[in-house]
Amino acid sequence: MEKKEAEREASENGNEKREEEVQVVNPWEVSAKGGKIDYDKLVEKFGCQRLHQSVVDRVERLTSRRAHVFLRRGVFFAHRDFNEILDAYERGEKFYLYTGRGPSSEALHLGHLIPFMFTQYLQEAFKVPLVIQLTDDEKFLWKNLSVEESRRLARENAKDIIACGFDIRRTFIFSDFDYVGGAFYRNMVKISKCVTRNQVVGIFGFTGEDHIGKYSFPPVQAAPSFPSSFPHLFSGKDNLRCLIPCAIDQDPYFRMTRDVAPRIGYQKPALIESLFFPALQGETGKMSASDPNSAIYVTDSEKEIKNKVNRYAFSGGQDSIEEQRLHGANLEVDIPIKYLSFFLDDDAEIEHTKKEYAAGRMLTGEVKQRLIEVLTKLVERHRRARAAVTDEMVDAFMAVRPLPNMFN
Amino acid sequence: MEKKEAEREASENGNEKREEEVQVVNPWEVSAKGGKIDYDKLVEKFGCQRLHQSVVDRVERLTSRRAHVFLRRGVFFAHRDFNEILDAYERGEKFYLYTGRGPSSEALHLGHLIPFMFTQYLQEAFKVPLVIQLTDDEKFLWKNLSVEESRRLARENAKDIIACGFDIRRTFIFSDFDYVGGAFYRNMVKISKCVTRNQVVGIFGFTGEDHIGKYSFPPVQAAPSFPSSFPHLFSGKDNLRCLIPCAIDQDPYFRMTRDVAPRIGYQKPALIESLFFPALQGETGKMSASDPNSAIYVTDSEKEIKNKVNRYAFSGGQDSIEEQRLHGANLEVDIPIKYLSFFLDDDAEIEHTKKEYAAGRMLTGEVKQRLIEVLTKLVERHRRARAAVTDEMVDAFMAVRPLPNMFN
Repeated sequence: MEKKEAEREASENGNEKREEEVQVVNPWEVSAKGGKIDYDKLVEKFGCQRLHQSVVDRVERLTSRRAHVFLRRGVFFAHRDFNEILDAYERGEKFYLYTGRGPSSEALHLGHLIPFMFTQYLQEAFKVPLVIQLTDDEKFLWKNLSVEESRRLARENAKDIIACGFDIRRTFIFSDFDYVGGAFYRNMVKISKCVTRNQVVGIFGFTGEDHIGKYSFPPVQAAPSFPSSFPHLFSGKDNLRCLIPCAIDQDPYFRMTRDVAPRIGYQKPALIESLFFPALQGETGKMSASDPNSAIYVTDSEKEIKNKVNRYAFSGGQDSIEEQRLHGANLEVDIPIKYLSFFLDDDAEIEHTKKEYAAGRMLTGEVKQRLIEVLTKLVERHRRARAAVTDEMVDAFMAVRPLPNMFN
Repeated sequence: MEKKEAEREASENGNEKREEEVQVVNPWEVSAKGGKIDYDKLVEKFGCQRLHQSVVDRVERLTSRRAHVFLRRGVFFAHRDFNEILDAYERGEKFYLYTGRGPSSEALHLGHLIPFMFTQYLQEAFKVPLVIQLTDDEKFLWKNLSVEESRRLARENAKDIIACGFDIRRTFIFSDFDYVGGAFYRNMVKISKCVTRNQVVGIFGFTGEDHIGKYSFPPVQAAPSFPSSFPHLFSGKDNLRCLIPCAIDQDPYFRMTRDVAPRIGYQKPALIESLFFPALQGETGKMSASDPNSAIYVTDSEKEIKNKVNRYAFSGGQDSIEEQRLHGANLEVDIPIKYLSFFLDDDAEIEHTKKEYAAGRMLTGEVKQRLIEVLTKLVERHRRARAAVTDEMVDAFMAVRPLPNMFN
């Protein structure tokens, strides 16, 4: 309650307020004055909840399988109503998943893969349908891209997404420029009627000089949260709950969506939210598309991966072998360890590595070597999977069609 | 140029400024402090042009037929680039027509029919295609209507529109809630990227408390001005010019559209704009939906028409027969004469009536009697035509289909 009023008050002064803040997290900007995002503060500010170990245990129980490494290691660390989704699932009610991507670049980096890798796991573990929104309209509106180029990038990105292993019997991928219309458009308009300009300014910080495309967009990202936006999938299932896996910078969209939902007779979507994947140079927010050396791309060669990790991955180890043996590494700031904790599935090995490295019995070079192996394997696997994705498969995933076996 | 800057300056203060103004004309409000709209001032303020007799003569020459009564009598009195449309037509280039309606009520009144009667004439005289937009989304956003009710009203209104005699081989009627999407949506997004919030505030007077649906709507009304919004009709004809017949209160939408057009590589739409049809009680703007006695509805019975004209039509005649014989009628304020000049096609008769009435040789009762005859005939003809419009015909007019003979 206090939150919403604060947002409203922020209104026209959104920008000034943001500059005073120590950290800024919204869909277009992630930065922290101290360098490191304070996730506790973010959870408190946004009003979402920490995802506790008990929930991870419950997921394992309900799905009869080991939780995904992103869940075990706290990469997906916050949520909204995820418990309600699990309650319903336990009662035998299904839900659907919704995630998305703004297609602004050709090549995805590892940070981009995280929500898709995790969503693929959720789909497989819970056996539920999934809609994936490619916001080519958003990227056209925010970037210097033509409509045609945005649509082309959407299709290119769809290939990378499909390569993450989604089940075509349960997955509908759509681009806004192609799919918006009909029931989806009607939901957009319903949502937009419930959000004032002042609220949008409070939530997203838009100004008077911003174009109205920006003001029109939030309902586009909100609409897939409601099953009635997909009559070919969910006709007659208006009460189906929606679970949205995403990075926490997307929370503002869904805070707005959850505010609106009951006013138009819809269920609030639930969320499960991730940390930001750190840049190679250190944990100061998201990776930057303008600096290719800040991230490992799924198109990087083995040599590039090796070079990037060795040259740019910020190390918490000591400057010399002697000092490292003496003092050990500072894991809190060490990027190789961070990356390994995202992508090295073996719990015993990661624990052992952290212990040895922190104690100085392992050197930075050894940890980096292991990371290079893990990333090379991951990127190689992705590259092979992507190469196998044909244009026909993209068409098939993006076809507006019923999914009769999506809950089986 | 000065205009646009003034609009921008108006920005947040739109509302206050409007209150100071003597007359307010925008898509949602038509009022004048003095009571009567000053069309000269409006033309100057909006920056459109008066439609001179030479243009009417030119239309007659080009179409080889008598100009429509609305053109001869100055009902359509202003325009933007109509001459360019005629230049192109003279060179053998065709154009297309675009008009529309916001379906907020079941029954149309005579004022609602005016753009459709005139557009039907233009279609027949120039043999050109026509798109008719039913802005059910707009009415949902501005009125207390459900999405379903807005869509129902759109279909009901489509029947009245079809009853005006449009040629199904050249006419595509669409509702936004049904048709928005694909190429149309892509144009909406392109347009919205070119208009800032400040500009929209300047043009339409929206405030911070207004919902973002209002901010999103202007591009929806703008999009049909561009042929690429209708690929099933105009594929490969991206340079086809558009002519929009409408009441002058719609000018703000198309001022915005014309500003944007060259920035996205499109032709500016041309406009031909009408006066407002006066209320029975006198010429103080548009008729009010909340007062059924302010207008003649196409659903009114002969008895209702007679009663309304006799009881409510404001007379410029004198209070007694004697005084009328002595001083004659003031035609400037006389509603029966105004209405007759809209709907009585016979130029000789209207001239004669005006002369005799002004000279006191005709009495108000006689003029009203003639008006009752004319309106009864008009309404009867409309009622019969509407009764003949089946649901199948509505479906046929609203089908997304090519119109192979639209220019023949």
